[in-house]
Amino acid sequence: MPNTPPLRSLLLIGTGLVGGSFALAAKAAGLFARVVGMDRNPESLRQAAALGVVDGVVEGEVGAAAVAASKCDAACVAVPVGDIAGCVRAVAPHIGVVFDVGSVKQAVVNALGDPPANYVPCHPIAGSERAGPAAARADLFRGRAVSLTPVAATAKSATATVRHYWEQLGAEVVVESPTAHDERLALLSHLPHLVAFAFMEVAGRNGSLAGAGAGFRDFSRIAAADARVWADILHGNAAGVRPYLDDLIDALQSLAAAAEAGDATLRERLAAAAEARRTVDTPAP
Amino acid sequence: MPNTPPLRSLLLIGTGLVGGSFALAAKAAGLFARVVGMDRNPESLRQAAALGVVDGVVEGEVGAAAVAASKCDAACVAVPVGDIAGCVRAVAPHIGVVFDVGSVKQAVVNALGDPPANYVPCHPIAGSERAGPAAARADLFRGRAVSLTPVAATAKSATATVRHYWEQLGAEVVVESPTAHDERLALLSHLPHLVAFAFMEVAGRNGSLAGAGAGFRDFSRIAAADARVWADILHGNAAGVRPYLDDLIDALQSLAAAAEAGDATLRERLAAAAEARRTVDTPAP
Repeated sequence: MPNTPPLRSLLLIGTGLVGGSFALAAKAAGLFARVVGMDRNPESLRQAAALGVVDGVVEGEVGAAAVAASKCDAACVAVPVGDIAGCVRAVAPHIGVVFDVGSVKQAVVNALGDPPANYVPCHPIAGSERAGPAAARADLFRGRAVSLTPVAATAKSATATVRHYWEQLGAEVVVESPTAHDERLALLSHLPHLVAFAFMEVAGRNGSLAGAGAGFRDFSRIAAADARVWADILHGNAAGVRPYLDDLIDALQSLAAAAEAGDATLRERLAAAAEARRTVDTPAP
Repeated sequence: MPNTPPLRSLLLIGTGLVGGSFALAAKAAGLFARVVGMDRNPESLRQAAALGVVDGVVEGEVGAAAVAASKCDAACVAVPVGDIAGCVRAVAPHIGVVFDVGSVKQAVVNALGDPPANYVPCHPIAGSERAGPAAARADLFRGRAVSLTPVAATAKSATATVRHYWEQLGAEVVVESPTAHDERLALLSHLPHLVAFAFMEVAGRNGSLAGAGAGFRDFSRIAAADARVWADILHGNAAGVRPYLDDLIDALQSLAAAAEAGDATLRERLAAAAEARRTVDTPAP
């Protein structure tokens, strides 16, 4: 008889875009045979089941999660940053390994106080302004970077297991500290979102946006992201964003002053900024 | 014998993305049989000829433009905003009609002082962060809005002729005043560009941008735009941009303060901004 591995099951807490995509991808990769879903939004849970993103559902809150965890091998916590620590605390004692997908890492570690050894903080740099299980895609993580930010308390075996999951999905794993991650993401993601939201707040109270071109649409697209998710991220990494925000406001004021004065330095500064942007689309050698 | 219209020719001053696209589209629509190109950048001019964007070239500066204009029926001035008035003045006395495609309108009218009756200020809301004749596309204006901002001195027949050109290219013509145009574009285009340039100035001096995701790329894409073109636009409409910039900085500071405090209003404000953004992708009823 062939030596087949036992059927493994995943507990998915939060069935939105990122969690749902992990479930679809992990099943496609053969990492799990079955996914059990939980979601505080009953409509998302119903939709996730109807779409086949999850194979079974568990209703209820933290107590139900503990019971469900005891019947699964691993848990993926894909909820807003402010709710991650509570979910991790509930399931960690009852399961082999648990990881999250939150965009902020140090605040979650701080909220846990004494992080469980089988909890691996993760953040896949993938997603979109779309939300919900219907936006989930099995190829969301292919070729994308995923940060793992284990802390001193994290068991090496837990990190190795979760690293294996992401690598099996085609992601490129980066291991770094929670603070290094948060500082990097403050600039690469959190500040742009804050700016896009602020811009749409201003634009939204200034009448018709008919006639907005492709530039406007690209620039502001991330402002359509989920407000609940982003309120938690911007709160969770407010200290990381602040120095870059101060620098940005200084740059805005000084570029605007150069534009008002017709100063020749304006063109040089725009050219340097444009050159920096062009390097983003050029693969590193 | 059939009554065929005489062969008509276009003088194209500035053979970049927008000018080159007008030339390709206008020939495809049968508006002109021949396009003669001028460009202060000899390499662009050579490339425009090699690519068939123009059928002939004229070298030299303003004096040459006047001579070339006398042999053509219409002129399209597709140069940076700061150079438009000089080109219009050079060709207007020698040609039937002349129009520009600049992103700022009042500063050009002011620079002309006494605008020629056969000059029609235009601005097609189309383009990309790409530049040069190789980026030109015959369908660039199809379904796009084009602002015409005639002033009191503009001849109605000139406006009608130029309106016909754009409509034949599939564009939707909007007629408005130069100041109304500039105020609208300050919010829809000029402020987003200023912010994207400022953001890339900050990001460019903060080390590696490896790991930038789709959100970062969309948000900052317009910062790859041509620095010469945008220095002129931001100078030409600095007064229009200023009030929106002040509002944006206020919104940034107050959203950041709400994020730092973990204030419950943050989520409501992000939700309203996200809702405003979503309306941009929903066609008006």
